[in-house]
Amino acid sequence: MNIMDRMAEAIVQKQNPTAVGLDTRVEYLPEGFFKPGADFQKSAGGAIFDFNRALIDAVADIVPAVKVQVAFYEMYGVEGMTAFKRTLEYAKQAGLIVIADVKRGDIGSTAEAYAHAFLSGTPAGEETLPAFESDIVTVNPYLGTDGIKPFADACAQRGKGIFVLVKTSNPSGGEFQDLIANGRPVYEHVGRMTAKWGEGLIGKSGYSAIGAVVGATYPEQGERLRAILPNTFFLIPGYGAQGGTAGQIAKSFDGKGGGAVVNASRSIMCAYKKQPGVPFAAAARNEALRMKEDLLAALGGRIG
Amino acid sequence: MNIMDRMAEAIVQKQNPTAVGLDTRVEYLPEGFFKPGADFQKSAGGAIFDFNRALIDAVADIVPAVKVQVAFYEMYGVEGMTAFKRTLEYAKQAGLIVIADVKRGDIGSTAEAYAHAFLSGTPAGEETLPAFESDIVTVNPYLGTDGIKPFADACAQRGKGIFVLVKTSNPSGGEFQDLIANGRPVYEHVGRMTAKWGEGLIGKSGYSAIGAVVGATYPEQGERLRAILPNTFFLIPGYGAQGGTAGQIAKSFDGKGGGAVVNASRSIMCAYKKQPGVPFAAAARNEALRMKEDLLAALGGRIG
Repeated sequence: MNIMDRMAEAIVQKQNPTAVGLDTRVEYLPEGFFKPGADFQKSAGGAIFDFNRALIDAVADIVPAVKVQVAFYEMYGVEGMTAFKRTLEYAKQAGLIVIADVKRGDIGSTAEAYAHAFLSGTPAGEETLPAFESDIVTVNPYLGTDGIKPFADACAQRGKGIFVLVKTSNPSGGEFQDLIANGRPVYEHVGRMTAKWGEGLIGKSGYSAIGAVVGATYPEQGERLRAILPNTFFLIPGYGAQGGTAGQIAKSFDGKGGGAVVNASRSIMCAYKKQPGVPFAAAARNEALRMKEDLLAALGGRIG
Repeated sequence: MNIMDRMAEAIVQKQNPTAVGLDTRVEYLPEGFFKPGADFQKSAGGAIFDFNRALIDAVADIVPAVKVQVAFYEMYGVEGMTAFKRTLEYAKQAGLIVIADVKRGDIGSTAEAYAHAFLSGTPAGEETLPAFESDIVTVNPYLGTDGIKPFADACAQRGKGIFVLVKTSNPSGGEFQDLIANGRPVYEHVGRMTAKWGEGLIGKSGYSAIGAVVGATYPEQGERLRAILPNTFFLIPGYGAQGGTAGQIAKSFDGKGGGAVVNASRSIMCAYKKQPGVPFAAAARNEALRMKEDLLAALGGRIG
C-alpha cells in the first residue's frame, strides 16, 4: 500500500478530498492571539504552532491531509523551522497525511540531501534521524530525472510520496510551462515524465507514489492531464482565494471522484474573518465542511 | 552599486572568480573532527559550522564569495539550520559575498515569504528581522514572472541579487531545459526572460542584479548564453568534481574575463584527502589557489 493508496482510502472514508493548507503567518492570527515577546521570532513560531495545533484539532476527523508551506516558517528563521517541525509532527500524530510543500529541486547529490531532510531521514551512524519528516513533498522538475530519483527512491524504500510541479496555479505559470515543444506544452512533457517516474510505484488504488501538482485555475489543462495520466494522483492548489471553483476542479478527478486532493489555505485559516463571533477553530471547521460539501456536490455526491 | 557590481569589483581585486561551496556534510569532515554527542544533529551542526569557519578563515583573503547549499543543513533539522544561519553570518563578517543556494521558486505570495527569509528580512512590528540573510539566492524559474517578482523587489530595495536557474550542470538537466519551443531551447527562453527581469537593475559594471546559473558542464550553451545575455552575470557550478574544466568555462566569461563566478565545493572542502599531511584548511587554501591559477590562465592571465 503506497502513500497515494493511503490518501485515496482516507478520502473515501472521510468523503472529503481536501488538504488544509497551513501557510500560517502572524498576520493571519486572530486579534490578540499573537503577543510579540522580547524574541519576536520565538514568540511568532510559538503562536503559529499554537494556531496550527488548534486548527488540526478542529479538522482532523473531517479532512484526510494537511499541506504545510515551508516558506512561511523559513521567514521566521530557526524558530520558524522549529514551528514547522512541530506542526508536521502534530499533524502526523493526529492521523493526518502530511504534505510538506517545499518545492525543492536540485542536482542528484543535493536532491538526496533534501530527500533525507523531508522524507527518509538522514544517516546518523547506525541509524537515520528525521529532520523535517513528512509523508509527501512537492518537488520542482526543472532539473530532470536525476533531481527526482533520490525522492523516488525514498518513495520506494520508505513508503513516501512526491507531487511534481506540472501545471502550477499562478497567473504567470504558463510563461515556460505552456511553451510548445514537439507539438506539446512543456507541462505535458513534465506530466508524461512524471508518469514514467512513477511506473514502478503504482499501488492498489491504481495511483503511483509520484503525483503531480495541477492548479485549479487551469481546468482545461487539468482535464487533459487527467486523461493522459491515469495513474498519477493530483494535488490541486488554487481553490478559494486563488479563484478555482469546485466545478472547474471536478474534471481533474477520475470517474469515481478520486485521484486528487484539493488544497485550500487562507479560506480555511482565515474563515473566522467571515464568521463574526465564531472562534477561529470552529470557523475553520465550518469552512472545511462547506468546502467538502461544495466539492462533493461537484463530484456527483459521493467519492469511491 | 548593485550586488553584481560588488561581486565584479571583488573578483578584480582578488583576481579570482571563485565561489567556495560550503555543501558541508559530516562525511566530508576529516577523521576525528566530528564526534557525535548524545544529540547527533546538534553535534553535527556544531562540527559543520566549526569546519566552515576554519575554511572561511583560510580563504577569505583570496576568494570573493561563498555559496552555501541549504539542503545539507536542512537534513540535520533545526540544528542544521542553526549551522546554516551561523555560516551565512560568519562569511558575511569575513567580508565575503554570501550566496545562499536555495533554489526556491513558488507562487507570488509564497515567493515573497522566501524573499523575506533569505534576502530582505521579515516584517516584525515596526522593523524587519533577518531569518537566513544572504546577499544573493538561487531561484527556480518554473513558475514564471510572479514567482520572481518578490525576489527582484528585494534586489531593487535592499541591494540584493538572485541567480535564476537557466541551464543547470547535471546530466539530465536537458530533459526539459533543452526542449525546443519556437525555435529555441527552453533554457534560452528562461535566459532571455532573466535578462528582461533584470532590465531596471543594471549597475555600473553593466551587470544586473538578476543573474543566471549556467552549468560548467555545457560549455557551448554557456558561450551562446554569454553572447545573448550581455548584462547577465553568471554563476557557474560544475567545475571540478562534476567535470567542468577552466577551458570550457572561459567562454562563459565576457571579453575582460569578467561577468561570471565559478563554484567549486567538494574539490576545495575535501582537498585535504589529496594532500596527505596537510591540515584541511591549509589544503583547501592550496586548492583554492590552484583553482584561481587554473581559471586565470584560461582567462588570459588577468581579469578586468
